[in-house]
Amino acid sequence: MNKFFSTGLLGLLSFTTASLAQDYYANARAQWFKKAEACKPALTLTEKRPQHIVEIANDTTAFQHCRAVQVAPATSLDTTSFGDKKEIILDFGEHITGHFSFAVRTTGLAADGPLRFRFTFGEVPAEVSVPFDPYPGILSRAWLQDEVVTVMHVPDTITLPRRLAFRYVKIELLGYSPYYQFNLHDLKCMASTSVTTWPEPLPPTTDPIIRQIDQAGLNTLKECMQTVYEDGPKRDQRLWIGDLYLEALGNTYSFKQHDLTKRCLYLLAALSDTTGHLLATVIEQPVPRAQDKQFLFEYALLYNVALKDYLEATGDRTTAEDLWPVAKKQLDIVRENMRDNGLMDYEKLEETWWVFFDWREELHKEAATQGLAVFALRESYRLAELLGHEKEVADLPALIKKMTKAARKHMYNLATGLFTGTTSEQVSYASQIWMILGGIATPKEGQRALTALRTIPDVCRPGTPYLYHYYIQALLDCGMRQEAKQALATYWGGMVEKGADTFWETYDPQDDFLSQYNFYPLNSYCHAWSCTPVYFIRKYPEVFQR
Amino acid sequence: MNKFFSTGLLGLLSFTTASLAQDYYANARAQWFKKAEACKPALTLTEKRPQHIVEIANDTTAFQHCRAVQVAPATSLDTTSFGDKKEIILDFGEHITGHFSFAVRTTGLAADGPLRFRFTFGEVPAEVSVPFDPYPGILSRAWLQDEVVTVMHVPDTITLPRRLAFRYVKIELLGYSPYYQFNLHDLKCMASTSVTTWPEPLPPTTDPIIRQIDQAGLNTLKECMQTVYEDGPKRDQRLWIGDLYLEALGNTYSFKQHDLTKRCLYLLAALSDTTGHLLATVIEQPVPRAQDKQFLFEYALLYNVALKDYLEATGDRTTAEDLWPVAKKQLDIVRENMRDNGLMDYEKLEETWWVFFDWREELHKEAATQGLAVFALRESYRLAELLGHEKEVADLPALIKKMTKAARKHMYNLATGLFTGTTSEQVSYASQIWMILGGIATPKEGQRALTALRTIPDVCRPGTPYLYHYYIQALLDCGMRQEAKQALATYWGGMVEKGADTFWETYDPQDDFLSQYNFYPLNSYCHAWSCTPVYFIRKYPEVFQR
Repeated sequence: MNKFFSTGLLGLLSFTTASLAQDYYANARAQWFKKAEACKPALTLTEKRPQHIVEIANDTTAFQHCRAVQVAPATSLDTTSFGDKKEIILDFGEHITGHFSFAVRTTGLAADGPLRFRFTFGEVPAEVSVPFDPYPGILSRAWLQDEVVTVMHVPDTITLPRRLAFRYVKIELLGYSPYYQFNLHDLKCMASTSVTTWPEPLPPTTDPIIRQIDQAGLNTLKECMQTVYEDGPKRDQRLWIGDLYLEALGNTYSFKQHDLTKRCLYLLAALSDTTGHLLATVIEQPVPRAQDKQFLFEYALLYNVALKDYLEATGDRTTAEDLWPVAKKQLDIVRENMRDNGLMDYEKLEETWWVFFDWREELHKEAATQGLAVFALRESYRLAELLGHEKEVADLPALIKKMTKAARKHMYNLATGLFTGTTSEQVSYASQIWMILGGIATPKEGQRALTALRTIPDVCRPGTPYLYHYYIQALLDCGMRQEAKQALATYWGGMVEKGADTFWETYDPQDDFLSQYNFYPLNSYCHAWSCTPVYFIRKYPEVFQR
Repeated sequence: MNKFFSTGLLGLLSFTTASLAQDYYANARAQWFKKAEACKPALTLTEKRPQHIVEIANDTTAFQHCRAVQVAPATSLDTTSFGDKKEIILDFGEHITGHFSFAVRTTGLAADGPLRFRFTFGEVPAEVSVPFDPYPGILSRAWLQDEVVTVMHVPDTITLPRRLAFRYVKIELLGYSPYYQFNLHDLKCMASTSVTTWPEPLPPTTDPIIRQIDQAGLNTLKECMQTVYEDGPKRDQRLWIGDLYLEALGNTYSFKQHDLTKRCLYLLAALSDTTGHLLATVIEQPVPRAQDKQFLFEYALLYNVALKDYLEATGDRTTAEDLWPVAKKQLDIVRENMRDNGLMDYEKLEETWWVFFDWREELHKEAATQGLAVFALRESYRLAELLGHEKEVADLPALIKKMTKAARKHMYNLATGLFTGTTSEQVSYASQIWMILGGIATPKEGQRALTALRTIPDVCRPGTPYLYHYYIQALLDCGMRQEAKQALATYWGGMVEKGADTFWETYDPQDDFLSQYNFYPLNSYCHAWSCTPVYFIRKYPEVFQR
């Protein structure tokens, strides 16, 4: 896909060798990594116990047609022989990220043979109900949380090595001796998060649905805040710049654990490509390493916005100064991929960069690219101003002006009031959203465009909560407060009404089974980029807390 | 099945309470347990590496129709992507008991998702070829050695928690990411045994087949000698008196690690039933515990023989004196289950005791019971003599005489020269064997009976190497040396010729698929009771080493 070298910890180790000249951040990288590690938060562990034994009922009115029905308190497990049950499903009553353990003991005669279990963990009921094999998904089958465990000696207490993200656990007995009885007891999960504080509750006058959304949003963010901002504690369990940006927004308005943001910003810088460009994602375990060649256009630029936000939230100039060279370097992505006429050269950009915006294959991304580029330039210039580095990026004001003018000339349809790309007439939410966020559309034009969207039958809608976040922001930026509240209450409230206690990676109100991975149990049902109601509700109390 | 209380470590802990009066060995038990633990051997660990990548060919001329065919050296695994292979079978070149570990590493891009493998370990090729499910076996499915492992982070090194017994391992890739390549390396097994010395080699003039049998016998015994004499390192991984007796015979003539025998004798005594009777088997993990209610007639009596053998081999009078009360108590099994006419009351015996002798459902056990009882009385009296305790068992000589006379009167057919039970005309190897070993048949009568067996079309043959051991001993006791050598070379040599490097739990030359558990992959293929050629070959060099 591109010509860049891979990096990572092995790369770090070689920074002191003769190959240093090839590395853009040769002198700073090791120090950044050290600072990132110094900010690594301790995890708070809390013991969680199952609440109920449940059955999963097939119910076409329920989310994904699966409804968890309580049949007994979980404590009843302690006193019954598991050999008689063979299979049960437990509900822990809330989403948990952590290490699961259980104990087995005989209830009479000595254990004369080993036991074998399959444990299947699910964030949503369907995951403990739908068969995983034959496996149709396009990501690793190993993401699915089913673990087969042999217990050679009874009694014993077993902790599954894998960290899990779940609310439900199905336990199937796959092997047992007919010559003794046993039961399972002391089932628990040591839940982990790096969150230590909890924000003030919302005023009691806040709408109930907003309160519920806020709670689920806080839960989502809390579960994703581990030793980095993870995208999802089930999958991918790692730091992506796009998720970091939104999580940091949520964190600033809730838990305020800014050191985690600082850690992630340093980590991404330390593990950036040798060309100086950021890689979109860092895999933290077993040692932090960037995913080589994973260049994602918007994410690299949103890093700058996250850094500016961090500086504004904390006043931590040291970090911002440390990382300013990184932000400055990312701006080249815009400069080097722009045509003379002030429009982003989308075709050229795509040769090197993944341009994401949303999980919608049909989305035409030209206009959104232009809008996001201008948004990022504006925010980056603001960062330069805060640090007094305007001279280093003195070309930006003219560049922003030129790009804005070009977009208005080539991408704005005065008749319809809608923005489109130059090579496609597709009307999409993404295009309008980013033209508004980039300040290319005036608030009034933005209102007109966002309102017009509703009348276009084949409009390209948001496919993820990720883009939906920017939609809410665009509504607010255009002063469409009531619409913003309504949209948030409808979209995130829709998940709540379908039983979400954490927000999902993918949510299409019309299709419970939508999956980017060709298998909906593989979706993450606690996903960072869905947590932002936490931010909206608290940043705009006059809109959401009335 | 019986009225006895269960015992075990929990029982041990209560020996100091008011319930002491109910316990036959109240004052000695804790001390015995302490002595057993003091003799617990350290395990010697040896790193073993796979030798070859093999394929299992379907071959009706091969044992269980499976032949392992070498296709590449195992080292070729280090340099090839496992994602391209998806499944391989490795041959470690020898039977190993221990902990298996492996490492995974990427061969390029960072690992962006977890891996999932199934490892299937087999003592024989069929175990890594035959599907385990749907599972038809009658013991726990969990005995089968297939383990599913998720590797969440790459690189990593994983040690499977379960101790394994295997020569072959099949590795199947069940989950992987399409976005990176990886390979498996550093596959190894830390092989464990408590054997530290190796006996002198046999003279070079010994028949090749005898030398091969001896080698496989030594391997079998070595693999079973862990922190107790196990019956089989794959299954059941525990101490049975019957196996102990034969393993101790083998050990006395090979490794001479008598402390392991001592440990097992003390452990069985410490964990015997509160009535004073021995339980047939001790499960060592997680804490030593006898299998409650598992009363096995011959095994309880063979304990006495093993104790006598131990004293003769070591001269350790302290241990023999300590455990003499246990041996003395077991004699009551004979006294209390004998009719006035001097015959064992087989029906009464069976109400309380499992009478085993062999895995042959059709075997009529009355005559063997009589023979074994007399054998045990004789050996126990010899033990009393060695310790000077004849007066405590002064009834034995008369009892032996009476039982011998009764057997000769009621169970010996002068016309055929064969022994049978009183309620069945079945002619079996077991009946002749035990009448000979009990000294009820004279050597000459024994010769006649053993010779006659070959001419009986529907004779009940031995079903296990366990009974075959006693058959060889009976042949030797009757002076049928050539026949003994021939039988040993044919039976154990048959296993060697079918590829055995350790001897099997079950071996019927006519039926490779015979299983007591309704599923031949569940059979143990390294089984203690099959190790005794080691003893015969060295105890009778004039027969086997010519």
